[in-house]
Amino acid sequence: MSHAMDLTQALGAIVGATHVLTDPQLTETYEHDWTGRFGGRAALVVRPADTEQVAAVVAACAEAGAAIVPQGGNTGLVGGGVPRGGEVVVSLTRLNALGEVDRALGLVPVGAGVTLGALQAHARAAGFDAGLDFAARDSCTIGGAVACDAGGARALRHGTARARVAGLEAVLADGTVVTRMAGLAKDNAGYDLPSLLVGSEGTLGIVTRVLWRLELRCDARVAALVPMESVEAAAALLAALRAEAPTLESCDFFLDDGLSLVLEHQRRSSPVEPRAPVYVLAECAGRSDPTDELAAALEQAGVEEALIADDTPGRERLWALREGHADAINAAGVPHKLDVGVPLAELGRFLAEVPAAAAAAIPGTRAILFGHLGDGNVHVNLLGPEPDDERADDAVLELVLACGGTISAEHGVGVAKARWLDRARGPAEAAAMRAVKHALDPDGRLNPGAVLPVRADQPSSPAAD
Amino acid sequence: MSHAMDLTQALGAIVGATHVLTDPQLTETYEHDWTGRFGGRAALVVRPADTEQVAAVVAACAEAGAAIVPQGGNTGLVGGGVPRGGEVVVSLTRLNALGEVDRALGLVPVGAGVTLGALQAHARAAGFDAGLDFAARDSCTIGGAVACDAGGARALRHGTARARVAGLEAVLADGTVVTRMAGLAKDNAGYDLPSLLVGSEGTLGIVTRVLWRLELRCDARVAALVPMESVEAAAALLAALRAEAPTLESCDFFLDDGLSLVLEHQRRSSPVEPRAPVYVLAECAGRSDPTDELAAALEQAGVEEALIADDTPGRERLWALREGHADAINAAGVPHKLDVGVPLAELGRFLAEVPAAAAAAIPGTRAILFGHLGDGNVHVNLLGPEPDDERADDAVLELVLACGGTISAEHGVGVAKARWLDRARGPAEAAAMRAVKHALDPDGRLNPGAVLPVRADQPSSPAAD
Repeated sequence: MSHAMDLTQALGAIVGATHVLTDPQLTETYEHDWTGRFGGRAALVVRPADTEQVAAVVAACAEAGAAIVPQGGNTGLVGGGVPRGGEVVVSLTRLNALGEVDRALGLVPVGAGVTLGALQAHARAAGFDAGLDFAARDSCTIGGAVACDAGGARALRHGTARARVAGLEAVLADGTVVTRMAGLAKDNAGYDLPSLLVGSEGTLGIVTRVLWRLELRCDARVAALVPMESVEAAAALLAALRAEAPTLESCDFFLDDGLSLVLEHQRRSSPVEPRAPVYVLAECAGRSDPTDELAAALEQAGVEEALIADDTPGRERLWALREGHADAINAAGVPHKLDVGVPLAELGRFLAEVPAAAAAAIPGTRAILFGHLGDGNVHVNLLGPEPDDERADDAVLELVLACGGTISAEHGVGVAKARWLDRARGPAEAAAMRAVKHALDPDGRLNPGAVLPVRADQPSSPAAD
Repeated sequence: MSHAMDLTQALGAIVGATHVLTDPQLTETYEHDWTGRFGGRAALVVRPADTEQVAAVVAACAEAGAAIVPQGGNTGLVGGGVPRGGEVVVSLTRLNALGEVDRALGLVPVGAGVTLGALQAHARAAGFDAGLDFAARDSCTIGGAVACDAGGARALRHGTARARVAGLEAVLADGTVVTRMAGLAKDNAGYDLPSLLVGSEGTLGIVTRVLWRLELRCDARVAALVPMESVEAAAALLAALRAEAPTLESCDFFLDDGLSLVLEHQRRSSPVEPRAPVYVLAECAGRSDPTDELAAALEQAGVEEALIADDTPGRERLWALREGHADAINAAGVPHKLDVGVPLAELGRFLAEVPAAAAAAIPGTRAILFGHLGDGNVHVNLLGPEPDDERADDAVLELVLACGGTISAEHGVGVAKARWLDRARGPAEAAAMRAVKHALDPDGRLNPGAVLPVRADQPSSPAAD
């Protein structure tokens, strides 16, 4: 107890006593994620204001031997940003400085605690686009998005969060700070530690600042909803759109039972008749009107029927069908949500086999599937299983591996899928990852249990090299 | 001696005796780079044919305790691909398989030994562009380009080699193989080892295969040579072009004394009168003719005089002024070549101060400067210093650091700049890099002395963790 008291005092001296939370009524919101599936008690929550304070906090925790869970907007879905029990939660939300946009280079320095929505607005005001977008935009933070290599619908054109990182600052496990914020488009002096930290989910370091690569703003937009006879036909459409419509920004898909669920939940009638097994929702964005380009590409692809929306309300009505899936599914039950990816050539097989595989594991399980066609990124929502019953999840992940896919596309591994990592990556990669983790966090104090499972045979405090 | 004999036999059993070279007449071309500045005797040269053979070769070297220098096209400029003395050179040129282009995803699997030029032709034939280009295209290999994170003029638009890597296969120091060749645009399951291997110059693993991300082919091109009054004016022009000409692909610069040297060497008269201190060479590439876009952007930027070339011979004449620098400089002496980067805001100061700094270190040193404006990437060519006299080089690198720049932009660290790495990256990053190196190559057998200097206090064979 006095040990914890010492750390509380030490952290209070760094960030100010009001930013060290120990009262369960105050710490509660940091201890559980919004899915309700993950979380645990924190030893305390500390809210540093800047990089220097983060470094001092990490050093103090190192001295006290305290494990750390870094947390951004707490919008994660895999339990990687909430305590498992007894850790210090380091909340980064106060690192919310948003710098000036460098218009010549299209770069802007962003604190880890800035929300994606705030960055988007800031970029737009300067004539740029953040180049990243997903539903949690107004809550999620840039630090979290980078730490998890978040994706979203526009990754098709702009890449994932990784592609936005032109520079990065992070605090390592020993409290030292690594900084690459010069904005050099070419810099190959030594290993690219920023690249290693992106997607490491706070297990190798804590992202404190990002030099964000912006895209030019493209205000002229057009969306098309295309009913398709099969996933294979949808994939062929994607190939045609890629080749003929360079302004293509996103290309999502959903299935007919998902559409039914959404329409029922939104009390809307179907905008598409007759209905089809698969729907493709594509959007082009250009500096001049891309409508003709999209229409020509659709025609060349042999599409005979499509709903085209070239104004914002119309586009939003189409996107509501895709983005409304989450709410409609939640209204139908508490889903198990799995974010996975499979090669495009295997997508048809995967989508066809998931429902049976899930139902075989737990009879009665219902699978709602949708996602980002261009990335082979499928959001699998399973309705039916009890919260702790992972048999259907496991069946789906088995199928993912059988299809040569990834157990995580854009949500991350977190604690939810850590036990799958070795099999998913194979022994050589898993061993290399453990070696890297051990090299940069020899005591295993940064987000323990996330990404790599904490194993009984893993030394908890090995001798220094 | 019998030790080496054993290894020769073991490697012969893996790759066939004809692909293990020990005769100095045969090994010679692998032992020195084309600058003539770097190289040493190899224990032997081994030429595996595929990934499996590379893995077996590395495992055999591990067992024999032999150090390895991986080598691609041997076009490096920093001594990272040639032996320092006594290593086994693993030549990757036989890994030259070039797979089919996936047109839906714009991806192609490429063996490490394929030349960039061969990949470019393959991509073009399928309606794509390799998205990477530089002068060594017909000799350099994809494995080397990725291992060094090579850049070139088009990185402004398409990024460096790193941005081309959609998947990677590599052999680690223990002979295990890590493979990510599924082509998943989103895959954040665990640490991104491919990103770590890109730019690690063969010190963490040997790249054997790359899944290459292609760009759509843009055949409509226009180039403009613009005389400018200052570097600051050139930077302002770049900002304007970026904002107004989305088809901008490259934006290089050179200075008036460099132009004089090139014109003299090429026995050409100047295409520009009156002459100016700085020249910007910009090229736009689109699917439709980008000439109007470039002309409008130049006008909006207030440019009154520019040479515009909208046909291939015209563009080549303009580019010959920029690309002719290397030959013209070589004709004037044996240059010390330094590839560095500085933030755009510091570029004017850097270019202005280099000549005096170099001449102060070694009186009479002449500095010819040119490079990629958009990346702040400067190729510093020093004429005058003896081959082994690095005082002028050091003065330039000091100035780079004073400007907040990088000691290597696109050529890599190699052995040439390894002794500068700690200062350039600072103690926290340098320590992290050493930890990562030690984690993945605990015996320090992969390309020892490249990137990280071999230090007396570095354990050569620490206890296993």
